[in-house]
Amino acid sequence: MRGYYFPYHDILPELVVENEEKIVFLVMDGLGGLGSEPGKPTELELASTPNLDRLAQRSSCGLIDPVAPGISPGSGPAHLALFGYDPVQYEIGRGVLSVFGARCFDPDPIMKPGDVAARMNFATLGADGTIKDRRAGRLSEQKGKELCRLLDDGIERIDGVEITVMYEKEYRAAVLFRGEGLSGALADTDPTIVDMPPIDPKPKDGLDPETLARAERTAAVVKQFVEQAVEILKGHEPANFVLLRGFDEYQPLPSFAELYRLSACAIATYPMYRGLARLLGMKVVDCGQSVADEISALEANWGEFDFFYVHIKKTDSAGEDGNADAKVKVIEEVDSFIPRILELDPSVLVVTGDHSTPATLKAHSWHPLPVLVHSRYARTGGAAAFNETECAKGVLGRLPSVCLMPIALANALRLKRYGA
Amino acid sequence: MRGYYFPYHDILPELVVENEEKIVFLVMDGLGGLGSEPGKPTELELASTPNLDRLAQRSSCGLIDPVAPGISPGSGPAHLALFGYDPVQYEIGRGVLSVFGARCFDPDPIMKPGDVAARMNFATLGADGTIKDRRAGRLSEQKGKELCRLLDDGIERIDGVEITVMYEKEYRAAVLFRGEGLSGALADTDPTIVDMPPIDPKPKDGLDPETLARAERTAAVVKQFVEQAVEILKGHEPANFVLLRGFDEYQPLPSFAELYRLSACAIATYPMYRGLARLLGMKVVDCGQSVADEISALEANWGEFDFFYVHIKKTDSAGEDGNADAKVKVIEEVDSFIPRILELDPSVLVVTGDHSTPATLKAHSWHPLPVLVHSRYARTGGAAAFNETECAKGVLGRLPSVCLMPIALANALRLKRYGA
Repeated sequence: MRGYYFPYHDILPELVVENEEKIVFLVMDGLGGLGSEPGKPTELELASTPNLDRLAQRSSCGLIDPVAPGISPGSGPAHLALFGYDPVQYEIGRGVLSVFGARCFDPDPIMKPGDVAARMNFATLGADGTIKDRRAGRLSEQKGKELCRLLDDGIERIDGVEITVMYEKEYRAAVLFRGEGLSGALADTDPTIVDMPPIDPKPKDGLDPETLARAERTAAVVKQFVEQAVEILKGHEPANFVLLRGFDEYQPLPSFAELYRLSACAIATYPMYRGLARLLGMKVVDCGQSVADEISALEANWGEFDFFYVHIKKTDSAGEDGNADAKVKVIEEVDSFIPRILELDPSVLVVTGDHSTPATLKAHSWHPLPVLVHSRYARTGGAAAFNETECAKGVLGRLPSVCLMPIALANALRLKRYGA
Repeated sequence: MRGYYFPYHDILPELVVENEEKIVFLVMDGLGGLGSEPGKPTELELASTPNLDRLAQRSSCGLIDPVAPGISPGSGPAHLALFGYDPVQYEIGRGVLSVFGARCFDPDPIMKPGDVAARMNFATLGADGTIKDRRAGRLSEQKGKELCRLLDDGIERIDGVEITVMYEKEYRAAVLFRGEGLSGALADTDPTIVDMPPIDPKPKDGLDPETLARAERTAAVVKQFVEQAVEILKGHEPANFVLLRGFDEYQPLPSFAELYRLSACAIATYPMYRGLARLLGMKVVDCGQSVADEISALEANWGEFDFFYVHIKKTDSAGEDGNADAKVKVIEEVDSFIPRILELDPSVLVVTGDHSTPATLKAHSWHPLPVLVHSRYARTGGAAAFNETECAKGVLGRLPSVCLMPIALANALRLKRYGA
């Protein structure tokens, strides 16, 4: 599979050196945008961003492609690329991300190789055997936690497989299956639309015989899990059923410490991003829910780490809602905190997103997204402001996202030269 | 061999969705140019192209490399790249292209895996056993057809191998060899210069033993074919000999329908381009020889297909002739038809070439060539006109040609997102 990207991971561990230089990745989710029609300004171009614009003039600016030109990425692959991991080589299922998100503050190893994880929704099953509500009336946080605890206490082990149910958010949870001979190659049980019956747990199509045998064993365990869950949930209507999706088998990834010799800190408000960061060996630190809370967390942890990942979720949420105005406001809010970040005097400050989420499309898109790399050693020029049009003229040009981590390390003087 | 390009074909079939959006690729062969000396305008810059210039301002513009920077491609690899096929992974010999070109309107499968094809020239052999004219005095169309029929009727089968001779154009033809245990790994029999004897059919150098055995069997069949052809051509001087080149063994490629779920239509005036399109599963439709004829064919077939490949040959012919003025005129003619194409309201219109053919060089060249992608969702900016200099400033940047098909599919909202 390898090929499109330079095989950085093969050579970086030999080149990396440790020093005191600090790197910040400020990631506005879904930052890249689009005009309401061709020729109109993007959300970032509509936003008043005096601090980012000034910074862009003193930085290397460009455009990055998370996966490849034309490909609209999910948040998982887009973030992996941003952190320097080939997003085609490393595929991580939503179940694993959920478990890591739910347990992100746990200092112990969260999953073991061979563990299987899935996302779980509490749902409402009608008397006719079809799903009436895939979210069980959007449970309260309190009720969601209570039901997760009931299931976790009530179902300990099925056919030798240890089972853990973890609360994620409201009606959402994650389930961890630990035992010998499991496989993550299971189809979703969620029919994704209402008035359809739930799908029985079963292996995905096209598996080799060895994987199929493991997937069949896993499906049998999951089937029993669902049956037992239904028993336990009796009397907790509308949450009388569970739907599972995003099954995945855990395989460890090389960590930030192994690859880059960085002690990394993640500041993010959403479980999935926390989970991904934890999966790469970052320390997830507690913070509130606002941008101001996140910047305060950055300041509070400044002395403890080499690398800081600060994730801003609401740019993406606004884009997905088709609300260009809201996206503009979030960008402007982030802009207002740039002086406080610069006050910390990071050796390298990267400002970018993980992918584009234009309000016009109400979805992740394929458009490359703007990036600025600010450091004492960054070449400047080309971009008069921080936006898609100006970054297209910047000295960085158009690059795959996987190039950003090595560029950041280089600017922090953390890479030796390659070869004699 | 794979490596330089992102492995689009591995992931696209899972991402592609069908919808009603239509895509047009308007391909001016050899479009990219060069000034008569450094600093002088290219052919495209000399041409008056008000329609393309206006379109460029409302499109994503950039430069594309057909194979890789520095590599001057043949038309085959350049077109494969344009259609999203890795031109290093997929090598198609001229013989196979000729057979597909000659049979492009045939609804039945044209070649079977293992079939071998070659291009054939009628030539003049002197009494001294050397080639005196590699084109047999440029036969008339009528005479070429007559001789092809004579050979096709006169030589049916040699050593169990079924043989078909197909008229291509004037002195040019294609030969199809169908039978067990053949190989396309044969050297050309054409000495390429006059006053040299023709080369005996023989295997290429450096073959593995298994391929060598098949190539030796094939060479023996071809040798007998040439001997029988010489007998049949007696009395048809100056066409008293045949030269064969571009031997190739057919291996099917994944089709546009399989890869992209597109029903594709090819509008091209030259057999080779029709052949390539047919090879990729496009329907080749009949059209006249002028640009106006081709645009009329586009209009006539608009309702029937999702994807339209419109190929303009004469930009390349003029470049090969070193005639910059003629190339300018063809470009201006094409420009005048842009309003009629826009009138059809395609969801995505890509205007580009397959490679550069600067009149200054009288040959295909390595220079990247200009491209514009027009769609409701294309980002605009950077390029004030449609030419090499302005496209170098466009928001698309510089990309491999293989990225264009995915970008076009994305702009037509025909790709789901990749990963969670």
